[in-house]
This record gives sequence, structure tokens and C-alpha cells, in this order.
Amino acid sequence: MSTATFFTPVQPAIQLVEERMRAQADLDTHPDLRAALDQLIEAGGKRVRPTIVLLAGNMLGADQEKLVTLGAALEMLHTATLVHDDLIDSALLRRGMPTLNSKWSPAATVLTGDFLFARAARLASEIDNIRLMQRFAETLAIIVNGELTQLFSARGLISRQNYYTRIYAKTASLFEMAGLSAGMVGTGDESIQAALKTYGYETGMAFQIVDDVLDFSGEQEVVGKPLGSDLLHGLVTLPAIYYAETHPEDRDVEALRRGDWQDGASMIRLVESIRRSEAVQFALQEAAEYVERALKALAAFPISVEREALADLARYIIDRTV
Amino acid sequence: MSTATFFTPVQPAIQLVEERMRAQADLDTHPDLRAALDQLIEAGGKRVRPTIVLLAGNMLGADQEKLVTLGAALEMLHTATLVHDDLIDSALLRRGMPTLNSKWSPAATVLTGDFLFARAARLASEIDNIRLMQRFAETLAIIVNGELTQLFSARGLISRQNYYTRIYAKTASLFEMAGLSAGMVGTGDESIQAALKTYGYETGMAFQIVDDVLDFSGEQEVVGKPLGSDLLHGLVTLPAIYYAETHPEDRDVEALRRGDWQDGASMIRLVESIRRSEAVQFALQEAAEYVERALKALAAFPISVEREALADLARYIIDRTV
Repeated sequence: MSTATFFTPVQPAIQLVEERMRAQADLDTHPDLRAALDQLIEAGGKRVRPTIVLLAGNMLGADQEKLVTLGAALEMLHTATLVHDDLIDSALLRRGMPTLNSKWSPAATVLTGDFLFARAARLASEIDNIRLMQRFAETLAIIVNGELTQLFSARGLISRQNYYTRIYAKTASLFEMAGLSAGMVGTGDESIQAALKTYGYETGMAFQIVDDVLDFSGEQEVVGKPLGSDLLHGLVTLPAIYYAETHPEDRDVEALRRGDWQDGASMIRLVESIRRSEAVQFALQEAAEYVERALKALAAFPISVEREALADLARYIIDRTV
Repeated sequence: MSTATFFTPVQPAIQLVEERMRAQADLDTHPDLRAALDQLIEAGGKRVRPTIVLLAGNMLGADQEKLVTLGAALEMLHTATLVHDDLIDSALLRRGMPTLNSKWSPAATVLTGDFLFARAARLASEIDNIRLMQRFAETLAIIVNGELTQLFSARGLISRQNYYTRIYAKTASLFEMAGLSAGMVGTGDESIQAALKTYGYETGMAFQIVDDVLDFSGEQEVVGKPLGSDLLHGLVTLPAIYYAETHPEDRDVEALRRGDWQDGASMIRLVESIRRSEAVQFALQEAAEYVERALKALAAFPISVEREALADLARYIIDRTV
């Protein structure tokens, strides 16, 4: 696949999603907050979550207005967590743009994130589906609990289970919510909802694994941060886990296992070893298996433009690494 | 009135509210987060908001289970905003106890607040009333927007309108929500809901004015922070506004008006002048007028134990200053 063609059919609706997001700042909203919101929306991102919502919802013939609202709610929730994340990581750049955190006080950044949470919740409530709303609140709790667990976990921890739990909380939970909630808006059939939930979950897990792989294999300009930066900060992701499992004797792996992730020379060497090893391919293979399961979940649906676009989206997750 | 008798009839239900709040940390919740939640609930407070919910709801014969859930949702939202507030103000003590902020990193404090938001939203959604949920999200947005406005506003600003807007956002909006949402749970009659909304609004405005008065008139041990600390931080509240209006020639008022609130000697003198002036009485009189309107709103209801308790609660707001 050469380009991300699956974005094309939903482009007009994505613009409506962004308009809906912008409209969350009303006349009562402080002008600086309104400007910050505009800037956050401008900075963009790929809008993968609303794209899943729109494609899955359209596949079921769901009400367009509700899908736009839902897409805006999920993307707003995502944006809120990013704002607080950047504060927590003291990140100064995201997607190559200055973060809110780099320009505002921590106080203003905390409150802006809170405001986005409030607006995301209001948007979600507008869909008029109480089960969806409960799931929405639950997803936020999962994301936040995951971040707290990561914060409290020992850095340098080499644990496969910890890794999967973490990427579920960080990424797959909201992808899962995108699939499930589009299903809730489009049908009362719980088996269809479950299939879309699975699609979202598997896609989200693959998405995060690939993100973690790109931290090792990517070109620095594309990734937008130093290669291996996760590991240099003591965050052990799947390629490092594979490498540690297959090279237990490597003295840099031993250093990591001892908790010496702050030994810069050792970690820089380890990043290089991982890059040159087969670990990156192993991790990618695992991501591809998640994608396969996502595609299998789609098989429950009759052929349609949207189904093919969802399949393309899942496959694209792997393709963007090659 | 000697004691706060209105708390007595709802004491058992308040304990259920606290249990429901505690139950928001489940097995998946990180142990440190669970401990923090327990400590926040332990630290307590008067539970005024759930008390309003329970009294108003019981007055209408509303479902007890829903009222407990609603009380927990609102108190949880309140607690979440306090956690972020303490972070923003770098406050080390609240209600005489160490804040979470004083013991945890900012990152953990931000995320704990976020977790409480998520749980508050989940509790609110469990009431199964979409209009209530929308209003809940809206209230959070009002509170946060108010804090942001305060953050961006010029310190030392002497503006009556700014003051009323601020205390509505800070306090009265959630009191209003307590009355309104209890009404939503108890009846479909919108005029009854509106009367309870008014009761909550007026009570909340009075509550915050009295809080601001206590910052000047209280005994330091009771208030738990230095007298006049709002003004010393450039936050102009109603007693200072009255004083400035009636003593425009006071050179310390002029200093404040010029934006020199960081002139400590001048502000300490101004706090003393306000304490000795009639401004505190004027402000209290205004709070009493809010309470009068709250009582008037209650007149729409037939006599009942709960109605009298709500009236006592409103009156108690003033009484606690004398």
C-alpha cells in the first residue's frame, strides 16, 4: 500500500469532528484557553480514533451526527491525556511542535487538560447512551491508572506482562472504545459491538507496538525524538524485551536488569545492539499478529467500502514502518 | 442555633456515600493510588454537597441508592478539583492536614486528580440520566474555566462582577448542581427542579462569601491559614471590595488598585483596616441575603423534616461566623 487511502472517504467528516472540537470553547471560555484549544486542534495528529469511529459507524449505517460527536469526544479525551502527559514528562515538543507545557505554567496546563476532560465528557453525554457514557468514564480511568502504574513502577523493569498492561492502558483501551462505541451508536447487536471492540483493541495494541519499534528503527527526523529515547528514560518496550530474552548474557542487558538504566553509555550501547538485532523484526511480527486478529474480527461484516478501509487502516499500521 | 443538627438525619447515608467513594478504587487500581484515595476520603470535610443531595432527594422521596451514588459523584468531583487546586496553589495543607501535593510528585498529583474525575464521571453515569450527566460535565467545565480565568486575571483586581463570577464557578456551581440533580433524581417536575437549583445556587454563593469573610474575621486556628491570606496573595474578595468602595482614599486601597498587591507591608495594613471596618458586616449581610433567597426557594415545598433541615443548613452558613 502506497498511501493511507482509508483516510480519504472520511475526510469531510473528520473536518466536522475538528469543528465540533473547536466549538467546545464558547463565549464564556477564557480567550487564552480558547487560543490554546485552537492550537491543540491545529497541531492535529492523524485522527486515527475518529477515523475508526466514522468508518465503523458508517459501515453500520449509524447516524452521522452522533458519529461526529463521538469522534470529537474520543479525540478530545485523547488530547486531554496528551496535555497532562506532556506536563508529567515535562515534554517540550510533541509532533515537532512546542507543547502547551513548554509555553504555559504547570497550573494553566493542568487546568487546560481538565477543561478538555470536561468537554470530552459533555460531548460523550450528548450521544444520549448511558452505557456508552459509563464505558467512556471507565476508559479514562484505565488510561489514568495505567499512567500512574507506569509512574510508580520501577524504571528499567523487563516484564512482558507489565508491557502489555501498559500499552493497553496507554493506547489500546481508547482504540477499543472507538470500535465499541461506534458499534453502540450503530447497532443494538452486542456480537457486532464485540467484533468492533476486538478490532479496536487489536489495532490499538499493534499501533503502540509499532510506535515502540519506531523508537528503535525509525529515522530520527521522522520519529521526532532521539532514537531509543524510551530506553534511555528507563522505559522498557517490546524490542528491548525480545532482545533481553534472546541475549540474557549481554552485559548491558544485565545492567538494565540490575536497574542501572541511568548508566547512559551502557544504554546507548544497548539501543545500538537492539537496532542491529533481530528483536525489532520479532516485535514487528508480533504487531502483525495483532493486525491479523483485527482483520479476522472484520470478517464478521459483509464486504463494504468501509470494511476495506478499516482493513487498510489496520494494515497501514505495519506498513508505516517499511 | 447551637449545633449543625441538619447533618444528623443523613449521617447513615453519608457513611454510605463515603463507602461508595472508597469503592472507586478497585483491584486494578494501583495500591498507592488506593491509599491516596483512602486518605483523601479520611481527611473528609463537612460533606455539605452530599448532605444537600440527600436532604433534597429524601424530601422528594427519591430512590436512596441513586442519591447515595449522586452524593458520591459530586463529592468525588469536588475532591478531584481540590487535588488539582492544591497542586496549582502549591498548597501544603488543607483542613489542617498535609495535602497530597505536599507528599507526592506533581505528576502523581495530576494523575490522582484525573483518576478522581474519571470515577466521579462513572458514578454520575450510573444514575442513568443523560440530562444529569450533561449537567455534570458542564459543571466541571464551569469550575475549571473559573479557575483558569482566576489564574489569568490580574491579581489585585477590584471588581465586583469578577468576584461573583468567580465564586459561582468555584463554589455555587456545584451547590447548584447538588440541588438540581437531586431534583432530577426525585421528580420530572421542572419547576421543582428549578426551585432546588435556586436553593443550591443561593446557598453556595452564601457559603463562599462567608468563607471569604472568615479569611478576615476568623480566628487563625479555626481558618487554618494566616488571616487575610487571600488578599496577601492578591485575591480580592467581597470584604476588600466593600472596603475599597467605602474607603477609596485609603492609600493601601490605592496601592491595591495600582496593582501593588505584592507590597507586603501595605497589604498587611489593609487586612487590619478591613478587619476593623464595617466591610466584614456588609459582606455578611450580603451572604444573609443569599440565604434569605435560598429559604424563599424552599417555601415551594410542603413542610417536612428534610425541608427544615435544608433551611437549617442554609442558616448555619451564616451562624458559623458568630
